[in-house]
Amino acid sequence: MRIDVLTLFPEMFDGVFGASILGKARDKGIVGLNAVNFRNYANNKHNTVDDYPYGGGGGMVLKPEPLFAAVEDLAPDGAKAPRVILMCPQGETFTQSKAEELSKEEHLVFVCGHYEGYDERIREHLVTDEISIGDYVLTGGELPAMTVIDSVVRLLPGVLGNENSAVTDSFSTGLLEYPHYTRPAVFRGWEVPDVLLSGHHANVEAWRREQSLLRTLQRRPELLEQVELTKKERAWLNNLTAAEPEPKKR
Amino acid sequence: MRIDVLTLFPEMFDGVFGASILGKARDKGIVGLNAVNFRNYANNKHNTVDDYPYGGGGGMVLKPEPLFAAVEDLAPDGAKAPRVILMCPQGETFTQSKAEELSKEEHLVFVCGHYEGYDERIREHLVTDEISIGDYVLTGGELPAMTVIDSVVRLLPGVLGNENSAVTDSFSTGLLEYPHYTRPAVFRGWEVPDVLLSGHHANVEAWRREQSLLRTLQRRPELLEQVELTKKERAWLNNLTAAEPEPKKR
Repeated sequence: MRIDVLTLFPEMFDGVFGASILGKARDKGIVGLNAVNFRNYANNKHNTVDDYPYGGGGGMVLKPEPLFAAVEDLAPDGAKAPRVILMCPQGETFTQSKAEELSKEEHLVFVCGHYEGYDERIREHLVTDEISIGDYVLTGGELPAMTVIDSVVRLLPGVLGNENSAVTDSFSTGLLEYPHYTRPAVFRGWEVPDVLLSGHHANVEAWRREQSLLRTLQRRPELLEQVELTKKERAWLNNLTAAEPEPKKR
Repeated sequence: MRIDVLTLFPEMFDGVFGASILGKARDKGIVGLNAVNFRNYANNKHNTVDDYPYGGGGGMVLKPEPLFAAVEDLAPDGAKAPRVILMCPQGETFTQSKAEELSKEEHLVFVCGHYEGYDERIREHLVTDEISIGDYVLTGGELPAMTVIDSVVRLLPGVLGNENSAVTDSFSTGLLEYPHYTRPAVFRGWEVPDVLLSGHHANVEAWRREQSLLRTLQRRPELLEQVELTKKERAWLNNLTAAEPEPKKR
């Protein structure tokens, strides 16, 4: 897979593209990661990429020409057209199924604005997807792009080793993870639950399933509607009517 | 404000902490940004920070000692206790109101795991908040921590200049933003709407409000329930029953 990011702050990507899973995937040749300053495509004297909005008002608006020119340069004629993904608060909320969809593409181009708005013709005629990572305000599209890239690249074949697959599996149940414990068995007087030290495999599995259900009920009850449960599990959950939501820590 | 991040990959933060708004806020002395490798607090021969899970199963679990030691070192006795924020998929979903809440603190400590699980005693006895930035799987808590930090720091007094305040305002209406246009008036045959070139301020405002309402209806109708609208606007929206959801681009 090839991934290009159009940004005015390519240096923001150095640390993230070079480290950990993304860096290894790049080193193995599984993915090409490329942050491009689209100011290089501003075909005017002052390298201007934004301008005042028509109709007045505050803020600046990214001009169409540099972004069209950049995308066309990165995706030459004849090649399969890339997915061009605009990071913006108005976009569809990013989900794991979107990550899986994008992981099947050959070429992704991310467009990151940075407090400016986008000229509407970029949305209408250049981009194929508009994505938001959540309902909060950020200073630019760079961190959202990194987030989407991380979630997509980890799905590519050969990227994750065995040490990570367990984490993936724990999500695939549709429930929140059960509590984990490791050594020491007693830390500052706080003990690991006896069942985990018992060596009784079936009891451990039963405890973990129950803890997963309980945590999901307390924190994200809406997830339970989409999960296949046994009759016994449904009954157990219904019996927990007395269960209060987990108390807030502050 | 002081922000410390506990991570095994401090180098991931260099590009983001140094650039743009975060870099400027740091240079102005508004925020201290510090990525700390908690492996430095592993008080054992092999600098081990994780271990096998009690009860068996795949994956590794972060041990309690290094993280407790790191937080206690960063927040000495006598100082106000910091908010200790665990980035994890089981946490509460991050929102703008959570960003505003955190922006009032003096000291934030972020704890980032990286495909490992956390020993449950870390959740129970060390952290004050557990945050998820959305329902998608990432390789670690680093990008989520950067995302939360970006949204918090931009709210601190003196961080955003006037050039950005307009963008903030556009969110404060509770609606999605109206389309923006800038020069050229015609780009590849695609024209800027006449009203924006008319110079008629009241018509421009009316068009923008209508476009904001329309876009919100098409993309995020649930947001309309929380917004104060005039009777005329409600009636106009109700008349749009024929309006189909915006077609998917792919």
